[in-house]
Amino acid sequence: METGKETGTLGIIAGGGPLPLAVADAALSMGRAVFIVGLEDNADQGIAAYPHGWARIGAIGKCLSLLKNAGCTEVTMVGPVKRPDLRKIVPDALGFKLLPRFVKLLAQGDDGLLRGVVDLLEKEHGLKVIAPHEVARDLLAPEGVLTRRTPGTDDQGDIRAAVRAAHAIGLLDIGQGAVACRGVVIALEAIEGTDMMLDRVGSLAPRLRGTVEARAGVLVKLPKPGQERRVDLPAIGVQTVERAAAAGLAGIAVEAGGALVGDAEVLARRANALGLFVVGLSHEQVEAMLK
Amino acid sequence: METGKETGTLGIIAGGGPLPLAVADAALSMGRAVFIVGLEDNADQGIAAYPHGWARIGAIGKCLSLLKNAGCTEVTMVGPVKRPDLRKIVPDALGFKLLPRFVKLLAQGDDGLLRGVVDLLEKEHGLKVIAPHEVARDLLAPEGVLTRRTPGTDDQGDIRAAVRAAHAIGLLDIGQGAVACRGVVIALEAIEGTDMMLDRVGSLAPRLRGTVEARAGVLVKLPKPGQERRVDLPAIGVQTVERAAAAGLAGIAVEAGGALVGDAEVLARRANALGLFVVGLSHEQVEAMLK
Repeated sequence: METGKETGTLGIIAGGGPLPLAVADAALSMGRAVFIVGLEDNADQGIAAYPHGWARIGAIGKCLSLLKNAGCTEVTMVGPVKRPDLRKIVPDALGFKLLPRFVKLLAQGDDGLLRGVVDLLEKEHGLKVIAPHEVARDLLAPEGVLTRRTPGTDDQGDIRAAVRAAHAIGLLDIGQGAVACRGVVIALEAIEGTDMMLDRVGSLAPRLRGTVEARAGVLVKLPKPGQERRVDLPAIGVQTVERAAAAGLAGIAVEAGGALVGDAEVLARRANALGLFVVGLSHEQVEAMLK
Repeated sequence: METGKETGTLGIIAGGGPLPLAVADAALSMGRAVFIVGLEDNADQGIAAYPHGWARIGAIGKCLSLLKNAGCTEVTMVGPVKRPDLRKIVPDALGFKLLPRFVKLLAQGDDGLLRGVVDLLEKEHGLKVIAPHEVARDLLAPEGVLTRRTPGTDDQGDIRAAVRAAHAIGLLDIGQGAVACRGVVIALEAIEGTDMMLDRVGSLAPRLRGTVEARAGVLVKLPKPGQERRVDLPAIGVQTVERAAAAGLAGIAVEAGGALVGDAEVLARRANALGLFVVGLSHEQVEAMLK
């Protein structure tokens, strides 16, 4: 977890959302050069404001040569990547060579695939893979309540129920998120993603959930047990807060150090404006809930 | 599991869907009288064709007096019941007296609540609670493939993935259903119910799921481990088959003897027309997948 010692250009392989840009800003603010490789159909167009290139998923050779030409020795992968249709991937020469390996890894789940990518970058191409939060610790959820609103007794029960549910589906490498309301788990995240799950909560009959007027229910996102934390931590952002608010939830709980939040102050400001709590649970709190 | 010996009127407490009517028909065909108590906002209006009465949820006294006045000594509960808004339940006198007990039971999950209802009927009111399939074994899913289409190798993998997921969420008393496609769990059922989950699968990006032209993916529904099987077995019906078909799935798997299917022939006919498989897994097959 040492930061700031490395001075070479930081490579950022960018999935969707604002986090890749937050990582780039953090590196630049410490005087470190960056180069972003945006994954087509995933990365924000905003990467164009930074030194960057684009590569489609499957164009592994191009991705590697972009990073090497930019002089990167360290690389970080950040931002959600939509699961591609395997039959529609157009690999480049290197991608084609590696395809059988990745198809095999994918059979081991997302986690197996990500480990394979890390191994490829590190062992075969001499790039060091670091976590986005090794660039800037501030990107991680801190411990404790971040907002004016704090979880009440009912919320504590919902946090516990959703923690248990998120843990169970994480064990199976299915998803990272769950929503509980008044003690009942009302939504589980599989491949649809957190945003779509939250929209679904908002479309449930009002008797099953909270409302904007009388908020109830909690979104919990947890790392999958045993997952490669360098490349696939759960993330929450301003958009997550806004969708949770629209779904009538009272708040959001993550594990401190176990979720990327981008700028915690910006997140808390939005949550305060909308009347939600955001809390970072200690690892011990999470463990106690799983007993 | 003896049937046909009891000759008193069979009481049927009816939730939603066609199963309560199927149970009534089965009893009548064996020469047994029935009386249906339809739960308001849940039961099908079709119960009006049978000796029946209506009771709202919370009107426990009325429900009991309807059953007793009809001469019922055995009662069965069948059909899904929408989780009511506890704050909006209007109990009758007996319901009011029992409310604290049920609020406490509900904290133990659906299963705790159902056990409490069974206890109330049996121990305090002398009614014997029987499973719908004790009235007619035919209501249960038989073992083996029911359809012309049979599960292929990919489907077997999806069945396994969805069985493991459904089991995990069942252990937490969250839900009974899961959908996997090409080895990936793409939807988990919480409170929204199977129909809404299937509609969601249909709205996922086509690269993540099957299509009507190239079916892929399997819906699995399993009993929650340790649940009160007399009153809350998972159910699939013609509507489930139709929604699974619309979502691009290749088939449906349940545990033989562990799911209500109503009329298996009718179900199979609809599945054949739509090109899906329906399979009843043996208990041993399910256990092997969980290892």
